[in-house]
Amino acid sequence: MPEFTIDLLQKRAAATPGLVGLAGGLPAMDLMPRDLLASVLRDVSRDNDALQYGWPEGVASLRQWVVDRLAQRGAVVDADRVIITAGAQQALALIGMRHRGRQIAVGAQTYPAAISAFERAGAEVVESGAAILYVMPGVANPSGVDLVPHARAMAAHSTGASWIADEAYTELRFDGHIATALLADAPDRVWHIGTLSKTVSPGLRVGWLIPPLGKHNEMLDFKEAVDLQASSITQAIATTLLDRLDYDAHLERARAAYRRRALVLCDALTRALPFARFAEPEGGFAVWVELDDAGDDIALLAAAIEAGTSLDPGCMFRPRRRVMPVAFRLSFSSSPIDQLAEGVRRLAVAIKRWRRT
Amino acid sequence: MPEFTIDLLQKRAAATPGLVGLAGGLPAMDLMPRDLLASVLRDVSRDNDALQYGWPEGVASLRQWVVDRLAQRGAVVDADRVIITAGAQQALALIGMRHRGRQIAVGAQTYPAAISAFERAGAEVVESGAAILYVMPGVANPSGVDLVPHARAMAAHSTGASWIADEAYTELRFDGHIATALLADAPDRVWHIGTLSKTVSPGLRVGWLIPPLGKHNEMLDFKEAVDLQASSITQAIATTLLDRLDYDAHLERARAAYRRRALVLCDALTRALPFARFAEPEGGFAVWVELDDAGDDIALLAAAIEAGTSLDPGCMFRPRRRVMPVAFRLSFSSSPIDQLAEGVRRLAVAIKRWRRT
Repeated sequence: MPEFTIDLLQKRAAATPGLVGLAGGLPAMDLMPRDLLASVLRDVSRDNDALQYGWPEGVASLRQWVVDRLAQRGAVVDADRVIITAGAQQALALIGMRHRGRQIAVGAQTYPAAISAFERAGAEVVESGAAILYVMPGVANPSGVDLVPHARAMAAHSTGASWIADEAYTELRFDGHIATALLADAPDRVWHIGTLSKTVSPGLRVGWLIPPLGKHNEMLDFKEAVDLQASSITQAIATTLLDRLDYDAHLERARAAYRRRALVLCDALTRALPFARFAEPEGGFAVWVELDDAGDDIALLAAAIEAGTSLDPGCMFRPRRRVMPVAFRLSFSSSPIDQLAEGVRRLAVAIKRWRRT
Repeated sequence: MPEFTIDLLQKRAAATPGLVGLAGGLPAMDLMPRDLLASVLRDVSRDNDALQYGWPEGVASLRQWVVDRLAQRGAVVDADRVIITAGAQQALALIGMRHRGRQIAVGAQTYPAAISAFERAGAEVVESGAAILYVMPGVANPSGVDLVPHARAMAAHSTGASWIADEAYTELRFDGHIATALLADAPDRVWHIGTLSKTVSPGLRVGWLIPPLGKHNEMLDFKEAVDLQASSITQAIATTLLDRLDYDAHLERARAAYRRRALVLCDALTRALPFARFAEPEGGFAVWVELDDAGDDIALLAAAIEAGTSLDPGCMFRPRRRVMPVAFRLSFSSSPIDQLAEGVRRLAVAIKRWRRT
């Protein structure tokens, strides 16, 4: 079971002192609005609604915040269409349940937990050719580049296809360019997903799903069946926080910080791994790197940990865990920026050793 | 769609001023440790781990608390077997996913969201005759009585059967008698479920699943696929709270308070609805009431709201939403204790009107 091995290696990496982590996809602690969160947590403790059961669709003011931001981007949506989920991940799982026994296309490589969300829910994940296509507008994971304009142009000609638009990183494009949401193009064919995990805190587990027109009630039944509702406490925290936070200014700071980190990592890659292929990321948390080698990318992860760093093996990101060409994802988002180059140097050592095995 | 109608009626009830709610299954606000929660929330805001991603199985100290309490009840379990879930509901949904395409037996009436958790995940819910049986040890929902000793005796003779033991109300038996956990009987055939929703706060969405021996890794993959992990923030809140709370003393207070409420409701029922059949609850939040009438129990809910109270229609609790005999669940847990009798009087008015239609 390769996933079991990757899990064990990830735990080993987390337990290794001095390791410069380049795996994961964790937001930087110093970019979370911690002082504000502290004051918000104090106030939420006085909010009875935060401790009691709530409605399965989530808190009304939080759903309103979601659609207000979409309206700024040219997509007018009623707040009644929004379902608050336990992060973007749960939105993916709910869509997977809805497509049990059917195919979902994800491209050549994609966010690993999207594959497992769909597969565990009973859908079949394929690279291409399905009637529904999973995309990450603005910034794709793991590539860090925007693959959607191409898909959008293609999809404009295929009226039958629908999209799962996962906007986890959309607002974290370094150039700050945020395209009109896909759901404005085709409100009856887009499953819109957003989250606070990458921009505020993943510990909240607050995301949202806007199902295509006419599918809200069915999806709300799924949501209620899987966990009744998103946490009242973390919804209250999120709502109060967003009321007090200048979210656009916060995003601006985050984009600038992640952009600096990306430049440092790419510069180190160019110097230490001149043979590696990668595209400079346009946003997000990570770089996708391909090698010309044949071999076992999980063994490469083990070698990386041995050398004091880590990575996410390429097979995790691919339907059916395809290994070739050998690739990996390096995250620049959470290790201290002044250690990123050292992480890459250790990775170069690891690749050398791995090639010898 | 009956469920849609019930949803709408529940929202109407919540929006009706002066209504004495007897629906739901909400814990009493005044039994939540609110002052302690307030101080805990203040401290959690300083905890970096609470804001970041965590492991899918949940926080180690919280898993240890779960097994320490089980050990006091004669069930020795390793903390590595515990998976922290988004409430007991998510544990049910994960088990449903695991049993996709198979049958799960739940008895004549059961917790409605267990039915939807199993069905939406692709399992088939039947009253009896399946190889896996859903039970609520100590206090069944909706009946409020312990149905497990009987099932336990039967199951002792059928070595093939396995149990889903949902302990949501187990520690809220009024007599304080807490039986050895079923998982001590058959660690390889019991899916053990617990939660803080009924005893501390449902807003936390903190529950746990202990899969049968040998099924942990498979279930952890499901858990990770559905939402990556339970909220780091609410896990930190729960862990800190349980460290500071005398949980047994807290349970003792809750049992006494709910027992008083149950007595008031049953007394009012005996006087206002002498024709109704019900068993005095042994614990939990509710009483299950049956009438000799034929008719539509959703119309009865509508009549109840009209008369200024509410109830949960019996069909919600039954596989295939069977209506006969007409029944309903009355919750005594969350409306003010001095309004419960008035709620029952209004219910008597509602039943009279409903019989005329």
